[in-house]
Amino acid sequence: MKEFFKVDTIDGVLSHTSSFDSVNTETVALAECLGRVLAEDVHSDVDIPDFNRSTMDGFAVKAASTFGASEANPAYLNVCGQIKMGVRPDFSIGPGEVAGIATGGMLPGGADSVIMVEHTDSLDASTIEAYRSVAPGQHVIEKGEDIRRTGPALAKNIRIRPQEAGLLAACGRTQINVYRRPVVGIISTGDEVVPVDRVPAEGQIRDINTQALSGQVQAAGGLPMVFGIVKDSRDDLMEKCRRALRCTDMVMISGGSSVGARDFTVEVLDALPDTDILVHGISISPGKPTILARSGGKAFWGLPGHAVSAMVVFAVVVRPFLDRLCGRSETTRRFPIQAVLNRNLASAQGRVDYVRVRLYDAEDQIIAEPVLGKSGLINTMVKADGLIAIGMNTEGLEQGARVRVMPL
Amino acid sequence: MKEFFKVDTIDGVLSHTSSFDSVNTETVALAECLGRVLAEDVHSDVDIPDFNRSTMDGFAVKAASTFGASEANPAYLNVCGQIKMGVRPDFSIGPGEVAGIATGGMLPGGADSVIMVEHTDSLDASTIEAYRSVAPGQHVIEKGEDIRRTGPALAKNIRIRPQEAGLLAACGRTQINVYRRPVVGIISTGDEVVPVDRVPAEGQIRDINTQALSGQVQAAGGLPMVFGIVKDSRDDLMEKCRRALRCTDMVMISGGSSVGARDFTVEVLDALPDTDILVHGISISPGKPTILARSGGKAFWGLPGHAVSAMVVFAVVVRPFLDRLCGRSETTRRFPIQAVLNRNLASAQGRVDYVRVRLYDAEDQIIAEPVLGKSGLINTMVKADGLIAIGMNTEGLEQGARVRVMPL
Repeated sequence: MKEFFKVDTIDGVLSHTSSFDSVNTETVALAECLGRVLAEDVHSDVDIPDFNRSTMDGFAVKAASTFGASEANPAYLNVCGQIKMGVRPDFSIGPGEVAGIATGGMLPGGADSVIMVEHTDSLDASTIEAYRSVAPGQHVIEKGEDIRRTGPALAKNIRIRPQEAGLLAACGRTQINVYRRPVVGIISTGDEVVPVDRVPAEGQIRDINTQALSGQVQAAGGLPMVFGIVKDSRDDLMEKCRRALRCTDMVMISGGSSVGARDFTVEVLDALPDTDILVHGISISPGKPTILARSGGKAFWGLPGHAVSAMVVFAVVVRPFLDRLCGRSETTRRFPIQAVLNRNLASAQGRVDYVRVRLYDAEDQIIAEPVLGKSGLINTMVKADGLIAIGMNTEGLEQGARVRVMPL
Repeated sequence: MKEFFKVDTIDGVLSHTSSFDSVNTETVALAECLGRVLAEDVHSDVDIPDFNRSTMDGFAVKAASTFGASEANPAYLNVCGQIKMGVRPDFSIGPGEVAGIATGGMLPGGADSVIMVEHTDSLDASTIEAYRSVAPGQHVIEKGEDIRRTGPALAKNIRIRPQEAGLLAACGRTQINVYRRPVVGIISTGDEVVPVDRVPAEGQIRDINTQALSGQVQAAGGLPMVFGIVKDSRDDLMEKCRRALRCTDMVMISGGSSVGARDFTVEVLDALPDTDILVHGISISPGKPTILARSGGKAFWGLPGHAVSAMVVFAVVVRPFLDRLCGRSETTRRFPIQAVLNRNLASAQGRVDYVRVRLYDAEDQIIAEPVLGKSGLINTMVKADGLIAIGMNTEGLEQGARVRVMPL
């Protein structure tokens, strides 16, 4: 019986992430920053807001002037002006006085709160009745309450979502320093693999992996660089690998990493200068015959040939490395969808099994239904909404088990 | 007391989605299709795979030749050839015969299964011992098992993920018919709002909404078109609205939609031809003063001025309309993150309260912690991982309640 390669656990593989460096940084315009990873701590040049700001349409007032006011016993208040939007009021108010103010307006001196227009009635041009009391600070955002100029507004290494883009705008940042998108080289191998625009002859199959892995790279914030299909030739593979390592930040080969007769990946890695094989085999299914090497400081992956296996390995193992390259901090969180399994699932001990599941929303809970079908079928990934893991030391999961689903 | 506008429920608002049409379609290259919405039912031009394909490295065999084989009593089998990758084998095998085959290879005539190389030993160049039996079909993907040429491969109106891109490649599709990205016009209003590149004077604030809403549009698959800031002038607003309606598929104004003195949005809508106000006020918080109109068949939104309120309204209400424009089917599912609330939350009856929460992963469950702070603070959106809804007819949620979190 042939000796199979030594396998690592997922944790063992992931322990290598910290030994790779993030890519360098670049400056992008605010309008282009969505989804990018911040490479600087951001401070605002002003307090946000830079004035005491009304959050309601109504009247700026000293709260004390309204104390005790009710429907039965309204407070009578003198209107001493109307606040113009976007300018500092040129007057102050005293006890028993109010000034008309719209949402977003600046409170005049003397005012500490806003009474909503819905809680007032106008008696004449200069007098209102207030039916409610307000507390100091009510319906007001104080100067610097959102972001203080002295403190940090955003910490680096986070992915910029729409709200972070909004905050960057508030801070006056038209140019943002972000990590470059890591370029990931993608190579397909196999004499049976033909390009998408070719009609496969008998025994041939079109290249699915290049497209599926490119999509995963893009979705994770990287830029795929496609190197096409290498036939099972050691020299061609060597040449493509050298070129990919030169032009990219990380390389992924799919196919050619099992113990098959045409396995040149290890040979090529052995022949490349400054190259160490870190991992040869992972205790997961699908995806066991995965290779991770470091070549000249760059991560080099040998992924399984089946599209599904390659995609699972990418989702579970490669992606944390790509996050590292992208500059994302380890505290960047993705939260699983919790669901309830709708049938028993057997599993082998000694490895983590990843099972594709379809999800159904059943009001009080979400149901996870395993997608049946062999792991080589891309169709099963299309039917799936996510992956669940069945741990190393369990023999399976029972119907009704609560599972955590990693979205696909 | 001023009359407040009549408010609709969320369901009432969402019932209008079906009255808007999806945008038209365009053709994109396979490499550009990720995240786009498919506008055609896709069929493959070949069976996938187009031959009986081995999923393992080993030997193609008639399963019956291995029946009864065990470690103690191996089957002795004659090796009558080696399958070349990517070509039809030019020989068949009979009972008691095998042919060497690699993962992805085409089974020769006569073979119905593959025995893994790990379960065999080579005795000499032409004989192996097999230690296990295999069942017919084992370690084989049959011709057409993944996708049959006669059936549909992908149905239209789905968003293309990496696996769908892979399947499109398998089907030989280099060009894909997808829905155009809807163009969404974004207008900010308010005399107090200044552009990002300006240092706000006292009483002024930079335009957060344009950037935050542009980000939400992009994340939802749309293309934002920015029309800048309109000062509180009816004529300028009218002019910008006309222009935005001409150039885009949907328009969003933020600010100017409450009952404030400077509320020109309704005036403008009243003056536009072929325009009906469908909704004026929604029973949600934040976000009550939201307007939805139809103008010449296009959706026109008046969103609240506060960035947080505008973003919540976008996430909860506007996004389903944008999905509709994008061509996404109603069965396109997004699944919430289930979490446990870590404190009591009060809520007013008669409206749905949206509360920003931060999530923590606590092994057996995910904890949702409400983000404190006034709803006008963009900072609270930055701290939040998602939104939870507290229903119309409840007075709040108790600590320990199971909640569904909509990711932000």
